[in-house]
Amino acid sequence: MSTGLHILVTGAAGMIGRKLVTRLVADGAIAGRPIEALSLTDIIPPTTPPGFTGTLVSWAADFSQPGEAERCLAGRPDIVFHLAAIVSGEAEADLEKGYRINLDGTRLLFDAIRLAGEKYRPRVVFTSSVGAYGAPFPAVIDDDFALTPLTSYGTQKVMGEALLCDYTRRGCMDGIAIRLPTICVRPGVPNKAASGFFSNIIREPLVGQEAVLPVAETVRSWLASPRSAVGFLVHAAAIDLAPLGWRRGLMMPGLSVTVGEQIAALGRVAGEAAVKLIRRAPDATISAIVAGWPERFDPQRAIALGFRAEATFDDILKVHIDDELGGTLLR
Amino acid sequence: MSTGLHILVTGAAGMIGRKLVTRLVADGAIAGRPIEALSLTDIIPPTTPPGFTGTLVSWAADFSQPGEAERCLAGRPDIVFHLAAIVSGEAEADLEKGYRINLDGTRLLFDAIRLAGEKYRPRVVFTSSVGAYGAPFPAVIDDDFALTPLTSYGTQKVMGEALLCDYTRRGCMDGIAIRLPTICVRPGVPNKAASGFFSNIIREPLVGQEAVLPVAETVRSWLASPRSAVGFLVHAAAIDLAPLGWRRGLMMPGLSVTVGEQIAALGRVAGEAAVKLIRRAPDATISAIVAGWPERFDPQRAIALGFRAEATFDDILKVHIDDELGGTLLR
Repeated sequence: MSTGLHILVTGAAGMIGRKLVTRLVADGAIAGRPIEALSLTDIIPPTTPPGFTGTLVSWAADFSQPGEAERCLAGRPDIVFHLAAIVSGEAEADLEKGYRINLDGTRLLFDAIRLAGEKYRPRVVFTSSVGAYGAPFPAVIDDDFALTPLTSYGTQKVMGEALLCDYTRRGCMDGIAIRLPTICVRPGVPNKAASGFFSNIIREPLVGQEAVLPVAETVRSWLASPRSAVGFLVHAAAIDLAPLGWRRGLMMPGLSVTVGEQIAALGRVAGEAAVKLIRRAPDATISAIVAGWPERFDPQRAIALGFRAEATFDDILKVHIDDELGGTLLR
Repeated sequence: MSTGLHILVTGAAGMIGRKLVTRLVADGAIAGRPIEALSLTDIIPPTTPPGFTGTLVSWAADFSQPGEAERCLAGRPDIVFHLAAIVSGEAEADLEKGYRINLDGTRLLFDAIRLAGEKYRPRVVFTSSVGAYGAPFPAVIDDDFALTPLTSYGTQKVMGEALLCDYTRRGCMDGIAIRLPTICVRPGVPNKAASGFFSNIIREPLVGQEAVLPVAETVRSWLASPRSAVGFLVHAAAIDLAPLGWRRGLMMPGLSVTVGEQIAALGRVAGEAAVKLIRRAPDATISAIVAGWPERFDPQRAIALGFRAEATFDDILKVHIDDELGGTLLR
């Protein structure tokens, strides 16, 4: 009898999904159990990872369509990483699409797991978000603070978390919803997300490009690197969740840091020439949006379970240079 | 031009629904605006209230069926009291029915409001529940405490609240979700709800009948009378909700009281003969369920908005005697 793992990743073509699959293939195992099968799905075709010697199934589909959830579960994966979602900006721009993908799609997947039989009880790792929270906040947000989102995306994540907790309590799955910090430094090109500048002001100057800073340097946020986000997912897949009781949604660790501190770290790592590439262009709209975002958490439950993030922004910068720029800066 | 109100009540045949309609007909107005039309619906035919001189439409239907939400809104009611729900015990016993009625039904109603046009923005008063909370708790639960339900019913209420808040923020409705305390004294006959004894031990002895107490007298709960619950609903229909921001779900005031204090009040009002009709029959299952329920809230937001409940259990008893027993005890 094999004890190898079958792992499903929805949203496998997204930024976090790609990095997760790369990590899984590199590790070849989770908590000592070999990964023998990978099922990867997304709305666009997921990249087939090089070097994987197990069974690989990869397909493009809208997972909120009838039958797709069942297709995802055909091989009865032991671990389900449910990352697929319409992002915040799009969920706000298209209300119906956001609810269809982020709420209905999640519910179809969870229902398919429930209906797959009493003996099937996979570990389900669902990515929730710092967007599940909404101002006003205390100075430090603890694990018991209410989820009061100020976006449709955040609302859909809150509803998905509630369903996951209920289905876990009822024995249909063994779920955990991890609320990711704002991810920084995001690779790729600048986008129009209100949070984009947290990454843009680092990523672009590191390669000699100008970046726009639309808010004051005093703006504080809760950040973690893409590598930490993948680390949270892999850790969540293997640990004993019984200590959580039925409260299976929890905020992940991160770094509370100001934009000014980010820029100071950039200067230390890449020099003042890089810092000079940041152009101040105050934007009242973005400043107002960002003012409603959490600044600092006290994520004791996640820390007690062994989740870890970066301790300084210099660490976050080094992760970006290692993972995206080949480990060195061209200066 | 008339400024009269059109009011819709879903769940109008339920205990709270009947009392709400009776109150609306007796008052004839909300906050000075005359009630000129009532639309009443429930899965069983709602009672037609005597004395109402306006337009009355009343029908029995499963409001989660296609087209029913639109039928509810045909007259574009100014105020929607959304009370219809499968109760806690049934939602736990029948998972799919609970989600179909309590989540899908609520969503169909809210979507029908959203799709009725940009100019239609009714006040929506949605009854949530103390069941939206789940242990472990601090000694006193404040307005920022997380909703972590331990029943499917509570989960469905949390999801309905989230949707209401998002649709309100997006301008589709002007919603408020009021979390009702445990209602005591419930009229009628003893039922099998785990919370039934809070009412049974008062209602039955007051009319010379024996009642069973399955828990210790030290058990503490958060109670309000049916009259207070109706008062919350009517108050929620008329007040300015802008002070709530987009956090439109809130715990209602109540009385934190032990079973022993309930029994002492019964003795003061109805004498020791009534108290002797309470038979102790400890039940480990019910005791364990009740141990996970909230004991005390600090509902500052609701109090600041003018919501009020009883201050003593003697008051709750007097409400029951007034409203259900004609104002006097037969002794």
